[in-house]
Amino acid sequence: MEQTATTPPVNFETSPDQYQHWKLSVEGNVATLAMDVREDAGLRPADYKLKLNSYDLGVDIELADVLQRLRFEHPEVHAVVLTSLKPRIFCAGANIFMLGTSSHAFKVNFCKFTNETRLGMEDMSAHSGIKFMAAVNGICAGGGYELALACDEILLVDDGSASVGLPETPLLGVLPGTGGLTRVVDKRKVRRDLADDFSTLVEGLRGKRAVEGRFVDAVYPTSKFQEAVATRAKELAAKSDRPKTGPGITLGPLSPAIDGDGIRYQYVTGAIDRAKRLCELTISAPVAPQPATADDYQAAGDQAWAIRAFRELDDALLRLRLNEPEIGTVVLRATGDPKAVLAVDASLDANKSHWLVREIIGLIRRTLKRVDLTSRSFFALIEPGNAFAGTLFELALAADRVYMLDHPDEANTVQLSPMNGGAYPMSNGLTRLQVRFLGEPDSVGKALSHDGPRDAPAALSAGLVFSAPDDIDWDDEVRMALEARAAFSPDALTGMEANLRFAGPETMETKIFGRLTAWQNWIFQRPNAVGERGALMTYGREGRPTFDFKRT
Amino acid sequence: MEQTATTPPVNFETSPDQYQHWKLSVEGNVATLAMDVREDAGLRPADYKLKLNSYDLGVDIELADVLQRLRFEHPEVHAVVLTSLKPRIFCAGANIFMLGTSSHAFKVNFCKFTNETRLGMEDMSAHSGIKFMAAVNGICAGGGYELALACDEILLVDDGSASVGLPETPLLGVLPGTGGLTRVVDKRKVRRDLADDFSTLVEGLRGKRAVEGRFVDAVYPTSKFQEAVATRAKELAAKSDRPKTGPGITLGPLSPAIDGDGIRYQYVTGAIDRAKRLCELTISAPVAPQPATADDYQAAGDQAWAIRAFRELDDALLRLRLNEPEIGTVVLRATGDPKAVLAVDASLDANKSHWLVREIIGLIRRTLKRVDLTSRSFFALIEPGNAFAGTLFELALAADRVYMLDHPDEANTVQLSPMNGGAYPMSNGLTRLQVRFLGEPDSVGKALSHDGPRDAPAALSAGLVFSAPDDIDWDDEVRMALEARAAFSPDALTGMEANLRFAGPETMETKIFGRLTAWQNWIFQRPNAVGERGALMTYGREGRPTFDFKRT
Repeated sequence: MEQTATTPPVNFETSPDQYQHWKLSVEGNVATLAMDVREDAGLRPADYKLKLNSYDLGVDIELADVLQRLRFEHPEVHAVVLTSLKPRIFCAGANIFMLGTSSHAFKVNFCKFTNETRLGMEDMSAHSGIKFMAAVNGICAGGGYELALACDEILLVDDGSASVGLPETPLLGVLPGTGGLTRVVDKRKVRRDLADDFSTLVEGLRGKRAVEGRFVDAVYPTSKFQEAVATRAKELAAKSDRPKTGPGITLGPLSPAIDGDGIRYQYVTGAIDRAKRLCELTISAPVAPQPATADDYQAAGDQAWAIRAFRELDDALLRLRLNEPEIGTVVLRATGDPKAVLAVDASLDANKSHWLVREIIGLIRRTLKRVDLTSRSFFALIEPGNAFAGTLFELALAADRVYMLDHPDEANTVQLSPMNGGAYPMSNGLTRLQVRFLGEPDSVGKALSHDGPRDAPAALSAGLVFSAPDDIDWDDEVRMALEARAAFSPDALTGMEANLRFAGPETMETKIFGRLTAWQNWIFQRPNAVGERGALMTYGREGRPTFDFKRT
Repeated sequence: MEQTATTPPVNFETSPDQYQHWKLSVEGNVATLAMDVREDAGLRPADYKLKLNSYDLGVDIELADVLQRLRFEHPEVHAVVLTSLKPRIFCAGANIFMLGTSSHAFKVNFCKFTNETRLGMEDMSAHSGIKFMAAVNGICAGGGYELALACDEILLVDDGSASVGLPETPLLGVLPGTGGLTRVVDKRKVRRDLADDFSTLVEGLRGKRAVEGRFVDAVYPTSKFQEAVATRAKELAAKSDRPKTGPGITLGPLSPAIDGDGIRYQYVTGAIDRAKRLCELTISAPVAPQPATADDYQAAGDQAWAIRAFRELDDALLRLRLNEPEIGTVVLRATGDPKAVLAVDASLDANKSHWLVREIIGLIRRTLKRVDLTSRSFFALIEPGNAFAGTLFELALAADRVYMLDHPDEANTVQLSPMNGGAYPMSNGLTRLQVRFLGEPDSVGKALSHDGPRDAPAALSAGLVFSAPDDIDWDDEVRMALEARAAFSPDALTGMEANLRFAGPETMETKIFGRLTAWQNWIFQRPNAVGERGALMTYGREGRPTFDFKRT
C-alpha cells in the first residue's frame, strides 16, 4: 500500500516557453486556455502515459502557472475559456495509473495542490474580475468535470458523445478528490438524489439531461457551440473591472540556490535539519525602498518585495510538501526592519483598488492560506531583530504556536497594521485574528486599534503570542517544544491541526479540505481502493476489484 | 489491522435495574448521574478490564438509556450533574485495550454512537430544558473530558490532582474521537494555540490554568466543591421550562422478536437478504386511534405510536450499524394508512409546547438524524399501500434516493404535513426540504403549501422523489439500482454519501461528524496507530510505538 514508485523532486517553477500541456491564446479581453496533454510527458513517463487529456502533477503545475500569469501578466484578460484541443475528449481527470503507482502522501498532496489551483480559479472570479467558462467539447470525466465545476459557467456541446460525469465511485472505488461532490451540491446546488445518481454513473450525462440536473449551464449543437462560447465569454468579460488594456508585469524565474539541505531565494531561506525533522523557514523584510504608488508597483514589476517574497514563500511551501514528507515541523522566522514591512503595508492598503496591487494582496492571501492548509506543524519564533509586523505578523497568526522572547536588554517587538484587519481572510471567510479571538471578539478590535509596537509581555497579554519566555528559559522551552512535537505521531498531528486551525464557520472551500479531503484520504488508505485487489490498482488491468463489503 | 476480536451482537436495550456502570439519583429538580464503571463488566471481559472509569460501548449504551429516561420518565429533572463515584478519577475515556482489539468498523461505529449520545446531551440543553454540569472530581482525560465538554458547564475540583486533558495525540497517536477538538475551539472557543498545547499534554491541566484557558468554567477547593456544584446545579435548574413535578411516562422494553435474519417490533420490521447485502426496513402507520391531546399522550405513555415506532426504528438502526457491517443498502418502506400518520402529525403540532410532546418530537428528530448519519445507502420505495406522509415522508427525504411507483390502477400518493416544515432539522440546522431544494428555495414553500396527496407524476415534478417508473419498468429499475449499489466499493459509498447528504451550512455537530470523524477514521486506518508497532497497539504493553514519520 505504501510508495510503489519514487517520484523525483518536484519543481514547481515553469513558464510559457516550457509548457507541454496547455496552449494559451488571448484575443481582446478573452483568453482561451486549451488543454492538450502530451501523453509521454508525465512526471514519471516510465510509469504512466497521460492518455485522453488525463493529468498528473506536472500538468497541474503548468495550469497553476498560467493562472498566476493571467493575473499578473494579462490585466486585459477579463474572461477565460477553458477547453480542449483533443478530438472528442475534454479531460479524463487525474491519471489513474499515476495514482495507482503513487505513495499515499503523494496522492494526498497532489490532490491538495489541484484543489488549491481550482479554488484559485474561483478566487480569480470572486476577487480579480476574471470569469471562467468551461467549453466542454468532449468527454469530461472525474477530475475533468471537477475542473469545469471550478468555472463560473459550463457549456457543453451536444454531439451525442460529449458528457460530464464523476465515475470515481463506480469505476475506481474512490471519491472525486478535487471538490467534485462538494461543488455539485454546494456550488451548483444539485439535488442530492440527482447528485447521488450522477456520482454512480460510469458514463456520465449528455445533452439535455446534464442541463436539467444543473450539472452544466447550457448545451448547444456542434454547429452553434463555438459561437455560443464566444458570445457568452464576451458577456462574462464585460462584467470585469480589470483594465481594458495592458501592460501587465512579467513574472520572472525565482531560481533559488539549492545547496544540500538548504534553499535560498532572495527573501526566503529554508534550512532542513533531518535529525530533528525540522525546517527553518525565514522570510526577510525588504531592504531597498519599496513602491509607494500603483505606478511604482507597475514599474517595479516582479521585483517588488511584496510579490517576490510571497512567490518565494509559496514555492518553498510547495517544495516542502511534496519533496520533504518527513520534515514535520516548520520554524518560521521573519527578520529585518519591521518598519519596512509596515511601509509596504501602507502602500498596499492605499492602492488596494488598483488592479496590480489587488493581485499582490491576493497572492499574499493565497500563500497564507497555503500555510493554513499545509499539514506540518508551524512554530513561529520571535526574537530580537524580528520583522513580524503587519503582513508578516499574519504568518505568526497562521502558526500553530508563537514563542516570543522576552529579552531583558534587546528590543523585541511585534506590531499589527490595518492589513491584519481583513486583507487576508482564511478559507473560512474570517481573518486570522477573528478566528484566534472567537471566544473574545472584542480582542480583535483592541489588538488592531493599538498603534505602535508591543513588547513580549504586551503581546502575551493581548493574546497575540502563545508564550513569552525570558532569555534564561527561551532556549530550553523552545527546544523542548520542538522535540516533543517531532516525537508525536505525524498522522495524529495532521488530524489535530486540521481540526484546531479552522474554528468558526465552514465554507465550500473548507468543506473541500475538511470533510471531502479527509474522507478521500481515508479511502486512499483502504484496501478496497489501494490493496492488491483494490479498485484503484486493478483499473485498466486484468480482473475486477475484490471488495471487503464491511461498511464502516 | 482488521478485526482482532469478535464482538458479540450488541443489544442496545437496557433499563435502570440492569445498569452496571451508572447510578442515578434525583433530588428535587436536580439529578446526579454518577459514573462507577465495573471493571469486569465490559462487553468483552476477556479482552479488557474497564479500569479507572474507562468506558466501552456497553457503558455508553447505559448512558444513552439513562438520558432517554431522564427526558421521558423524569420531567421534574431540570439539571443533571455528571460526576464520578471513583476516588480521584472522573473518567479515563474510552478503554484503550478495547479500541486496540476492535475492528475498524467497530471503532468507527462506537465513536459515532458515543458522539450521538453526547450531542444528545446538548440537544437536551437546547430543546428540552435540561442543563448539564460536569462536576469533575478527579482525573478527567480523553473521552472523559469530551463527556464533560458536552455539558453546559464544567466545574473542576482543585485538589492538586484532578485535571482535564486530551492526551490522545501524545499518548495514543489518534485524535480525541468524541468531539473534543471541535468542542474546544468551536464550543468553548479556546484560542487555537492554547488548544494546540492542551491537546499535546499527557498530564492535562489542573486548577487555575484550566480556567484561564477556558477549558473549565470554575475550580473550587475540595472543601467547597460539593457546595458549589449544588448551588450552581440549582441555578441551572431554575432556568428550565419543564414541569415542576412529574409524573413522566415509563419506557418499557421493545422486546423485538428476532428470527433468523429477521427482526420484528410492533411497528418496525427488518429483513436481511445477505446475498444482496440488503435490509428491508418497514415502518407501519398506527392502526388504533392515537392520542389527540397532551393528556392523551400522558395516558398512552410509551404505547403511543409516535414514541414506540421511532424507538423501534432507532433500535433497528443501531443494531444494523453495529451487528450487520456487510449490509450496505437499506430499503425503506412505510405502510398503512397515511391519514393515520397525518392525524398524529396534527396532534404533535397542536401540542408541541407540552413537555411530553416536545420530547416525542425530539425523539423523532434524533432518530431521523441517526438515519442521516448511518453509513448505509438508503433507498425509499413508495408503492401502493404506502404511508409516506408527513413525519414518515421525512424518512423518504432522509433517503439517498426515492423511487415511487406510478401505478396505472392503484392509488399511490405521498403527502406533506406542517411537520415537514421545521420540526425535524438535520444536523446542519436546515430541514431536509431546505437542503433538498438548496438550489431552488421557492420549492420548499411550494411543496409545503400544497394541501393533499400527490400522485407519482406530481411528486416527481415537485422534486420530491428521484424516479417514478410505471408498473412495467418498476421492478427492473429498482432491482438494477439496488444491484448496482451493492456492487460499489462500500468505502467510496460511505465517503460519497457523507459528502452529498450535508449540503449547505456546517455546524459544530456536522463538523464533529464530517471534519473530525473523517480525520479520525483516516488515523484509525494508519499503521502509526493500528499497525503492529502503532501507538494504539503498544499502549500499556512493553515497548514504545514506532512511527513512519512521513507527513501527508
